[in-house]
Amino acid sequence: MKLPILPALQWGAQYNRELLVSDLVAALIVTIMLIPQSLAYAMLAGLPPEVGLYASVAPLVLYTLLGTSRVLAVGPVAVISLMTAAAVGEQAALGVHSYWQIALTLAFISGGLLLLMGFLKLGFLANFLSHSVVSGFISASGLLIAASQLKTLMGVQASGDNFFILIWSLIQQIPNTNVLTLAVGLLATGFLFWVRQQLKPLLIKIGLNKLAADIVTKAGPVMAIVVTTTLAWQLDWPDAGLKVVGTVPQGLPPLTAPLWDLTLWKDLFVPALLISIVGFVESVSVGQTLAARRRERIEPNQELVALGACNISASLTGGFPVTGGFARSVVNADSGARTPAAGLFTAIGITLASLLLTPALYYLPQATLAATIIVAVLSLVDFSIFKHTWRYSKADFAAVAVTLASTLLLGVEIGLVAGVVLSLAMHLYRTSQPHIATIGLVPGTEHFRNVLRHDVRTSPHVLCLRIDESLYFANARNIEDRLNAEVADNPKLKDVVLQCSAINDIDASALESLEAIEKRLRDAGICLHLSEVKGPVMDRLEKSDFLKHLSGQVFLTNYRAVQHLCPEIIQTKSVL
Amino acid sequence: MKLPILPALQWGAQYNRELLVSDLVAALIVTIMLIPQSLAYAMLAGLPPEVGLYASVAPLVLYTLLGTSRVLAVGPVAVISLMTAAAVGEQAALGVHSYWQIALTLAFISGGLLLLMGFLKLGFLANFLSHSVVSGFISASGLLIAASQLKTLMGVQASGDNFFILIWSLIQQIPNTNVLTLAVGLLATGFLFWVRQQLKPLLIKIGLNKLAADIVTKAGPVMAIVVTTTLAWQLDWPDAGLKVVGTVPQGLPPLTAPLWDLTLWKDLFVPALLISIVGFVESVSVGQTLAARRRERIEPNQELVALGACNISASLTGGFPVTGGFARSVVNADSGARTPAAGLFTAIGITLASLLLTPALYYLPQATLAATIIVAVLSLVDFSIFKHTWRYSKADFAAVAVTLASTLLLGVEIGLVAGVVLSLAMHLYRTSQPHIATIGLVPGTEHFRNVLRHDVRTSPHVLCLRIDESLYFANARNIEDRLNAEVADNPKLKDVVLQCSAINDIDASALESLEAIEKRLRDAGICLHLSEVKGPVMDRLEKSDFLKHLSGQVFLTNYRAVQHLCPEIIQTKSVL
Repeated sequence: MKLPILPALQWGAQYNRELLVSDLVAALIVTIMLIPQSLAYAMLAGLPPEVGLYASVAPLVLYTLLGTSRVLAVGPVAVISLMTAAAVGEQAALGVHSYWQIALTLAFISGGLLLLMGFLKLGFLANFLSHSVVSGFISASGLLIAASQLKTLMGVQASGDNFFILIWSLIQQIPNTNVLTLAVGLLATGFLFWVRQQLKPLLIKIGLNKLAADIVTKAGPVMAIVVTTTLAWQLDWPDAGLKVVGTVPQGLPPLTAPLWDLTLWKDLFVPALLISIVGFVESVSVGQTLAARRRERIEPNQELVALGACNISASLTGGFPVTGGFARSVVNADSGARTPAAGLFTAIGITLASLLLTPALYYLPQATLAATIIVAVLSLVDFSIFKHTWRYSKADFAAVAVTLASTLLLGVEIGLVAGVVLSLAMHLYRTSQPHIATIGLVPGTEHFRNVLRHDVRTSPHVLCLRIDESLYFANARNIEDRLNAEVADNPKLKDVVLQCSAINDIDASALESLEAIEKRLRDAGICLHLSEVKGPVMDRLEKSDFLKHLSGQVFLTNYRAVQHLCPEIIQTKSVL
Repeated sequence: MKLPILPALQWGAQYNRELLVSDLVAALIVTIMLIPQSLAYAMLAGLPPEVGLYASVAPLVLYTLLGTSRVLAVGPVAVISLMTAAAVGEQAALGVHSYWQIALTLAFISGGLLLLMGFLKLGFLANFLSHSVVSGFISASGLLIAASQLKTLMGVQASGDNFFILIWSLIQQIPNTNVLTLAVGLLATGFLFWVRQQLKPLLIKIGLNKLAADIVTKAGPVMAIVVTTTLAWQLDWPDAGLKVVGTVPQGLPPLTAPLWDLTLWKDLFVPALLISIVGFVESVSVGQTLAARRRERIEPNQELVALGACNISASLTGGFPVTGGFARSVVNADSGARTPAAGLFTAIGITLASLLLTPALYYLPQATLAATIIVAVLSLVDFSIFKHTWRYSKADFAAVAVTLASTLLLGVEIGLVAGVVLSLAMHLYRTSQPHIATIGLVPGTEHFRNVLRHDVRTSPHVLCLRIDESLYFANARNIEDRLNAEVADNPKLKDVVLQCSAINDIDASALESLEAIEKRLRDAGICLHLSEVKGPVMDRLEKSDFLKHLSGQVFLTNYRAVQHLCPEIIQTKSVL
């Protein structure tokens, strides 16, 4: 299926009334859910709450036009907001530009990079973020975000360069806790956990249908906001030290422009790149999961273009970096969204909210927003990956552990880069130390297996080796060493057969090593043969002089090599 | 063979008079060759000529005690001197410390890093410098060095941030050329090329024995120096604008200490690391080449320790970064050195030279030294690698070309790093896009091959696929996509068999993908089977739950899978 440049043309042509109703219902539910979420994530990013609403309008429209997922909902998400806070905070501390303007610029650069990656078809780059690194990073981000919200929940000031310093600073602040704030925060948190885990079954039990129960449950954060805001207003809680959101400007998202400051762009380049990649990975994972359920597919390179346009539109309408969010997309899908038009209707809903609802947010307690964030992000923290990877693969365990620890200790950017670099380094190290098996014939078959693991037949004159790795510069010398050692240990040797079934490539450095091996064996009176060389590898070897000089032959199968070189180990088969 | 910590104990115990004579003769020849070379490389590094002599004494002694090659000669070498000039020049321009002291410190840091790598057994790191990158880097370094000496040959001032700017600056300086200097330089260059290429056969033709012809030939640079120095002195050439070496202090290498300046150390860290790795690679390559000729072997991790000690000793005795040099080691071996004691004797020879000969160097023309450098380094420049790699592997060609171009344009450090990063990135990219072959049975065998390349038998109900790569995070998603597409294209499918003969590892991310593939196939009513799973991979799969849920079976061979699933494609064999 070739997708059009504007995927909206495809589904738009078939739009009808039935689809419209489904999409409208979904949009209503998502809007109700997004209002508190947008305010909360803007706060998490260090921005005024209305910016969260602005960032939820234009990106939704752009994704509707350009995206390939039918149900993905784009807007502020927790991890990207945390990364934005880290990147913008550092620059804003310099005092040259305002915090908001830097955030706009970050969204613009990130959008530009996403567009560029899309045009260059670099979607595959996301594959280099392994599942282990992403897991460790997301869990660490969840913990960092939750910790950052605790100070709002306690009504104190606290800060720290890393997770542990922040926690220590919070502990020191315990005596200064504002009891009213803490009470509101804890009650809201408890309520939201209860809504998330127990309200829906309860509602269904008392007779509500599933859709209604769903809407009520998703509206949990709105209920918490309405109740705490009303109480704060009626009981004058701000006078008792409870911090509220305060004046939120009323109106449409403003038109804005990024800062054109080359030094700032240079400093924001790396954070913007990391935000782009993490946002893309999160968005594509969500999109693929939801598409697979509906037997549809998404096109990663088109997604890059769509997300790039979303972020640029966010930067031009007063927003900050956005991506496809997990929670909102799942809600969108579960609520019955059928086409991306649901996103468009959600955008209209949010616009109405920012036009009409903002005065009502004056008395909204910040602790309530902190509670919604904490409840949302703690579901991201998943330590079961430690157990799985420890059992299955120590290298993956190390990738999870290092990513998690370095994100908590050194921050989101260094943590993520450390995880990627470590996982690539471990992969390269492993391939530089290849497993090489001496193999023999499995009796009664034409199949060869490791002499150490299977009961196989071998000949003292013919050594069959299977190198379990492509030959390339990083392992060429190891293979030379191993072959030299094997030859030294087998004085009766006349032939060496390399079974190449696991060799997927031979680069120029490895070809030099093969030539050196061949020459050394020839000097010792030993022939070198190859067997089971794959097509692509053979094509390439034929372009070199190696096969012309080769003292031995290239056999189609290792069995044929043995038939030719030491038939006795096969013939004895019939004696048995 | 386990090597002792002090390899000298091994050969020292068997030392005798015959070995002594061989070693003394070799030492004499190497000393004669090293005097001009040491002066020239110190000049190349931007240091006073006597520093080259100092750097050739203590390192030779330390290598004699600690090294594992019997013939490697350690001292200043061209590429390391060039890298030293680049690193020290940048720091010296700041004006805080003197050039020489920074060079001493660089040698100290580099030595420390080598020792550390040796103790941590990190010798394998050198494997990540592919042959293509090293070739490109060495050729570019040769060109850079030759260009840097042209100004001395012309007797002008010129400088440039990169090779092309430098050449352009030299062209602009042509009108200012000192004709006498140029004449001396060109004659010396011509003479040295003639000695190198034609003198030895000539001497043998006129009746000299091979050893004597060799000594005379190696003494070529000394002859050029003696003749031009004598002429410069007798004819008062310095008055005519010819630059000479001038006063060289007479005496033993001085005791010195590195600078203890943390900022400087931080700035020198990356250059020192690159110098260590390049020096190690050069030294080990030379050592291995010479050891293989004599059926000996060298121990890379012990070499790291030895070279580390050599560099630290250089920094404590007025020297600069050193490593095992190709030319001097070959001369040492060819002249009959039998044990590392030859190095010790060479060190004594150089010490005598720096005690007694330095006054005689006053009138040595700098152009003569430049000529010896040019002739030495142009032999490093080898463009045939372009042709070979272009034919064999475009990825290797790209690695050579990018390393060469970026070294010429951006300098030795960036050039080298660019080459390594590119070659690793290309390797990772390739493994992230694995070759996946649909395979069928080769009639009359138990062997399976690609349906596109071989005339093989297949069944419409059973799809056999061979994935030509280990499964890891970077390719897990591609494999999922390919399998989904294959299944969509084959509506009659009942069984999919993955032949795992080329899969050397399955990491945690890939295991998740396999589980997703298995689940999707099961939902579509298709069984997933594995065949020819290797021992180490099977061990790991058994630690996960994958095999418990697997809808199909794990077959020892793909042939058995076919016997079980679609015996009809085998039975027809007997009909033929």
